[in-house]
Amino acid sequence: MKAMRDPIVTLLTDFGTKDYYVASMKGVILGINPRCKVVDISHHIHPQDIMAGAFVLANAFSYFPEGTIHLAVVDPGVGGARAPILIVTDHFFFVGPDNGLFSLVLRKEKIRETYVLTEKRFFLPEISQTFHGRDIFAPVAGHLTLGISPKVFGRRIDSLKTLNFPEPIVRGMNLIGEVIHIDSFGNLITNIRREGFSQFIQGRPFLIKAGKGIIKGLKDGYWEGKKNELIALFGSGGCLEIAVREGSAEKELKLRKGDSIRISVKREQ
Amino acid sequence: MKAMRDPIVTLLTDFGTKDYYVASMKGVILGINPRCKVVDISHHIHPQDIMAGAFVLANAFSYFPEGTIHLAVVDPGVGGARAPILIVTDHFFFVGPDNGLFSLVLRKEKIRETYVLTEKRFFLPEISQTFHGRDIFAPVAGHLTLGISPKVFGRRIDSLKTLNFPEPIVRGMNLIGEVIHIDSFGNLITNIRREGFSQFIQGRPFLIKAGKGIIKGLKDGYWEGKKNELIALFGSGGCLEIAVREGSAEKELKLRKGDSIRISVKREQ
Amino acid sequence: MKAMRDPIVTLLTDFGTKDYYVASMKGVILGINPRCKVVDISHHIHPQDIMAGAFVLANAFSYFPEGTIHLAVVDPGVGGARAPILIVTDHFFFVGPDNGLFSLVLRKEKIRETYVLTEKRFFLPEISQTFHGRDIFAPVAGHLTLGISPKVFGRRIDSLKTLNFPEPIVRGMNLIGEVIHIDSFGNLITNIRREGFSQFIQGRPFLIKAGKGIIKGLKDGYWEGKKNELIALFGSGGCLEIAVREGSAEKELKLRKGDSIRISVKREQ
Repeated sequence: MKAMRDPIVTLLTDFGTKDYYVASMKGVILGINPRCKVVDISHHIHPQDIMAGAFVLANAFSYFPEGTIHLAVVDPGVGGARAPILIVTDHFFFVGPDNGLFSLVLRKEKIRETYVLTEKRFFLPEISQTFHGRDIFAPVAGHLTLGISPKVFGRRIDSLKTLNFPEPIVRGMNLIGEVIHIDSFGNLITNIRREGFSQFIQGRPFLIKAGKGIIKGLKDGYWEGKKNELIALFGSGGCLEIAVREGSAEKELKLRKGDSIRISVKREQ
Repeated sequence: MKAMRDPIVTLLTDFGTKDYYVASMKGVILGINPRCKVVDISHHIHPQDIMAGAFVLANAFSYFPEGTIHLAVVDPGVGGARAPILIVTDHFFFVGPDNGLFSLVLRKEKIRETYVLTEKRFFLPEISQTFHGRDIFAPVAGHLTLGISPKVFGRRIDSLKTLNFPEPIVRGMNLIGEVIHIDSFGNLITNIRREGFSQFIQGRPFLIKAGKGIIKGLKDGYWEGKKNELIALFGSGGCLEIAVREGSAEKELKLRKGDSIRISVKREQ
Repeated sequence: MKAMRDPIVTLLTDFGTKDYYVASMKGVILGINPRCKVVDISHHIHPQDIMAGAFVLANAFSYFPEGTIHLAVVDPGVGGARAPILIVTDHFFFVGPDNGLFSLVLRKEKIRETYVLTEKRFFLPEISQTFHGRDIFAPVAGHLTLGISPKVFGRRIDSLKTLNFPEPIVRGMNLIGEVIHIDSFGNLITNIRREGFSQFIQGRPFLIKAGKGIIKGLKDGYWEGKKNELIALFGSGGCLEIAVREGSAEKELKLRKGDSIRISVKREQ
């Protein structure tokens, strides 16, 4: 991949936006290349929740133009043994800690090369042990926007840490998944994807059980529900989602991340 | 209007910033035109509160340079019957759902043309029924920044959905308005505008009643109040506003959106 | 200092992001110079907390490229007696109210010149008494990005308002500081800096008392703590910080801004 003519760096962190953390990363990147664009994906990943970061990143990265540099920092092990890495895929660059944060992205993107970041000339002169986002990852991303070849940033490696994401399981007449994300509308997004769902259902009638809620059938969009109706549908990321039309399924059902969602078909007689 | 040399797209949504929604819209826009600037107006409109979105948009849009494309999505009816539209006014472009979200803007801007977005070649190849912000509105805005003529995006229409915003009413010696917005300082912003107020008052002395608070006269700025004093003044958007100097009128008076604010003049004797 | 080729304006305010305030400032700046970049430092400074604004700004500004214009508005006295100012230092421009907001920055940056903003031709045509961020500071910053000389914006002055930040004190065998910031991880950041700490400790063993917590020794990074361990370390801004590995020291210790933190050495025998 070549450097972009109008380079873009995206940022995903669990830093929030009330502190100086995100701004100092932006300053470092723009100090190296004042012409590049820095775009926020989110800074409101729950602190140190690598899975949540992986989920949001995996649903956003592919919409950016080819060559975009995705910088992601959800990094409870900062300063410790986990390696700082650069991943080059068929369409993008990814910079961040090797702790599984890129696991879900890599189900969609083919890796070309991965590097451990070792070349200190691309870091800030002083490296804290608490803020590699500013001191290592941001300057590496900044230098990448200048078209510097990935291979000069460090040593090539062949394996990456992966996270075990919960997968739905089939148990008798039930497909059991779980809530993996709750969005700001209170929609409960599950790990049940359209393909696995269709394969399990095979055209049979089914019920969806989500806490105290029981839902019959799927909608195509929120608008098909009546106001305050509890509905299920496949959302914009391709996952089964429990929603309340113009309301919050989270509040209605009092469910949380990790709670199970069960799809049941009737035993054929 | 011609395409801007340095095109700007603003975004206003109720999507919050913890999810992938806003970022994927930005990715889509930058994928079509990596040279344009995407500027957030707000993503913290209360979910599905079209009036709140209309209010914030109407107070921000006019400060942007001529030719700016304002993309706004507060869209409880996404995927349903409401049309996706493009409005061209004397100074700006507006892209979003036809559900009244642009009602307040259009009290200030003169419409030149309005189009229903029908041309699928300007949308993403796959269109979800839950996220037209990403799949329809963002790519249309992106293509607009390239200077494509509005008329090729769809079919011209002549009428738009408008929202009924609450208007202040005169009842005897009272002008009764209501709180239409509470800002992050806790200032209570009302629907009473300077002109209507002056016309009603006509130089007579008056009292302002806001919940348990009674305020005599107006201040010119917050600084005229004593610390923690309850005051009334016309704010930066031209509306009557109840405030507490270095405090929160919302907390002090425990008022909410929709609560009434009463201006009373004395009966002349 | 010369105008930047790719000018950058940063924004720090206590305006939050749910209202139209920040967006209208960005619109004004881009209306004057559509080529400049506007970068958020933070808009979530606690309302009217000048010290918090000063702290966040002082930890972020220096990472931006030379010539960056830092616009900061935490301004409880807006419209009143406090002057609107422009400070030119060795590396940056600072625009905002003269209320101490730049006090901490100016411990790190050398002032070249300071001006009171008096030239109305660089303001918006109508100036509210409640929103100088939009009506005075943003247009001044916008004009600065065009390379207009600082001296034409107003009258030179020689002194600035400074805030009294709490400084750690030595009392017998104790160094007593306080919590000056709590970040979004719940880390308690104190006003005890590395130099003052080392000078006090002089290699002696010590205990750190933070509320009900007692900590022995320092860590180099969060990763050195065990999960949920209460630790102390010098953070990325150079201040002593109390943290819980993968948890929140704020919640664990129930401490707040202003609470004292005590470092005790043993009496030598």
